Amino acid sequence: MDEPVKKFLKELTPYPPGKPIEELEREYGVKNSIKLASNENPLGPSPKAIKAIKESLNKINRYPDSKGYYLKNRLAEKFGLPMADIILGNGSDEIIKLATHAFVSPGDEVIIPFPTFLMYEKNAQSFQGKIIKIPLKDFYIDLSSILNAISEKTKIVFLNNPNNPTGTALGINEISYFLQSIPKEVIIVLDEAYIEFATEKNIESTIHLLESCPNLIILRTFSKLYGLAGLRIGYGFASKDIINVLTLLQQPFSTNYIAQVGAIAALNDNKFVKKTLALITEGLKFIYSQLNTMGLQYINTQTNFLMIKTPISSKETHERMLKEGVIIRSMEDFGIKDFIRINIGLPEENERFIRTLKKIL
Amino acid sequence: MDEPVKKFLKELTPYPPGKPIEELEREYGVKNSIKLASNENPLGPSPKAIKAIKESLNKINRYPDSKGYYLKNRLAEKFGLPMADIILGNGSDEIIKLATHAFVSPGDEVIIPFPTFLMYEKNAQSFQGKIIKIPLKDFYIDLSSILNAISEKTKIVFLNNPNNPTGTALGINEISYFLQSIPKEVIIVLDEAYIEFATEKNIESTIHLLESCPNLIILRTFSKLYGLAGLRIGYGFASKDIINVLTLLQQPFSTNYIAQVGAIAALNDNKFVKKTLALITEGLKFIYSQLNTMGLQYINTQTNFLMIKTPISSKETHERMLKEGVIIRSMEDFGIKDFIRINIGLPEENERFIRTLKKIL
Repeated sequence: MDEPVKKFLKELTPYPPGKPIEELEREYGVKNSIKLASNENPLGPSPKAIKAIKESLNKINRYPDSKGYYLKNRLAEKFGLPMADIILGNGSDEIIKLATHAFVSPGDEVIIPFPTFLMYEKNAQSFQGKIIKIPLKDFYIDLSSILNAISEKTKIVFLNNPNNPTGTALGINEISYFLQSIPKEVIIVLDEAYIEFATEKNIESTIHLLESCPNLIILRTFSKLYGLAGLRIGYGFASKDIINVLTLLQQPFSTNYIAQVGAIAALNDNKFVKKTLALITEGLKFIYSQLNTMGLQYINTQTNFLMIKTPISSKETHERMLKEGVIIRSMEDFGIKDFIRINIGLPEENERFIRTLKKIL
Repeated sequence: MDEPVKKFLKELTPYPPGKPIEELEREYGVKNSIKLASNENPLGPSPKAIKAIKESLNKINRYPDSKGYYLKNRLAEKFGLPMADIILGNGSDEIIKLATHAFVSPGDEVIIPFPTFLMYEKNAQSFQGKIIKIPLKDFYIDLSSILNAISEKTKIVFLNNPNNPTGTALGINEISYFLQSIPKEVIIVLDEAYIEFATEKNIESTIHLLESCPNLIILRTFSKLYGLAGLRIGYGFASKDIINVLTLLQQPFSTNYIAQVGAIAALNDNKFVKKTLALITEGLKFIYSQLNTMGLQYINTQTNFLMIKTPISSKETHERMLKEGVIIRSMEDFGIKDFIRINIGLPEENERFIRTLKKIL
């Protein structure tokens, strides 16, 4: 198969996902393992979503609504935007891919902070973009260096606020200034997957800036706060013109029926949202205090996950934790050799993590 | 948004999906409508799939297994292929897109019979392929004209066997000869979405040809026979090398968790499969005899749908049927002005279709 395949494909590497629990138990022969590796909602899915899905299962022989009418309608209502400014995706991952497909030709420059969510880089590579990595500054996205890096060849700037894997977030004033300063020919993909978890006052969504920023694409997801990662449903906001272009590149039945149904119900599940946010707050308090006692460094987070510095390599920590049935993320995948990332779990999962960490160190 | 977007995007047009029942009822103010437009399974989803999904809903807060281990394992067992030769897709649509992404650069030629499933063309356009359309011959795919059309610039030939929307199918000997005759640098994407419905003896899958055809990609789906269109789950077979390349271009969590769970259960639901096939056979018999009585021409089908020639334009027939709450497909979307396409429904749906057709003509 050397002949027909495009040459650049040979340089692509796969995305390293968090290990699924079943895979760990299959490969390591452990049982009762827990997963704190993928920033999932430890409470499970929104109960309202489960109920709505159960009632809709008899319709899964039908193709989903390719327009996602009811879900877009609900999102439009919630966020005060016209439906035409909304796109649904098979996870917000898909919208990242569509944006890259629409705007990046081979050799075009794509600016990506480093480290950040790996899918920006993976997608830019798959459309042969030239990736310009801008290192974080004290674990924060460095907007002024990004501004300096913009050239005539820059097509997209990816920003993740709060940023995965660091958990740090930029204030709305900084972002607003950045959006005003950037040339209108450059697309900003601003991924707000974790924005609902932010507790600092000046961290907020950029939705109100959409109207004045025709080059802004905002990404959101049902995978975190709403507990629907398994269904694959994300959404994006942008100008009608951008949404039109992205939609033309999208498979017509990209978001599945169950995901649309579950997402609508989850949006109405205020009780679950509150419970989740309280759990994260309490869990973080516990983890912070334990890490302080252990004398381990960590990065204060605006999300449901945090990075922790380990005295042994993150690869080794990861491997030892796996053997104990605790799935975490080694930050080596992100190019950092001495940090791990965990998400907040249930109280007993947080306790087990701390107990196991003490044991293996 | 004129600046950053790639110019070719302005020439793309959206895929015209079959109207969802809810949309028809919302827009036309009709009730109790039926849908025979999207070749869905009228019996509903596989009951085993529904049961398995219900039992798994408490896990949809977790990301799906990006490797699709258990579903691939089951498919490998069923089809006697190594797991490395299998890819799962968010519908087989996604695999069409991945193949086009992997093999088609701007200006490369993509050969597509005409008319056929529209997504081949849509995807080829979105990667700026030059589309060479080869008209059907007496409603059959014309393999010898396709062979003649192959040039040094040809990257992919798309074949749909049986062919949507005509329902016609090529025999295994013809396809086998074609596969042997085609240069190994040309990828054949052979979409067998409807192969399980074929009743003629010489119509069969090409799976046994995979080993001798390193340039063959076979596509299959759970959307038709298994009644899982709403979940979006398709699969493909090809050499390990091709599968590797396609997987590198795929989002890691492209197929959702519920789809994986449902598909495994559906594969084991022999009772449902038998019931579906019997329903289609009986339904076709009924429709054929009614059309004969009415003196309407139609094309004999190897699938769960068929094309019917109408004395008025297909557009007009489509519109009049919609007003009566019967959703069918105008073949105008496929460039044919005097045919409609329907799929076989439940007995009462088939009767209502015939009754309504008589009324509106």
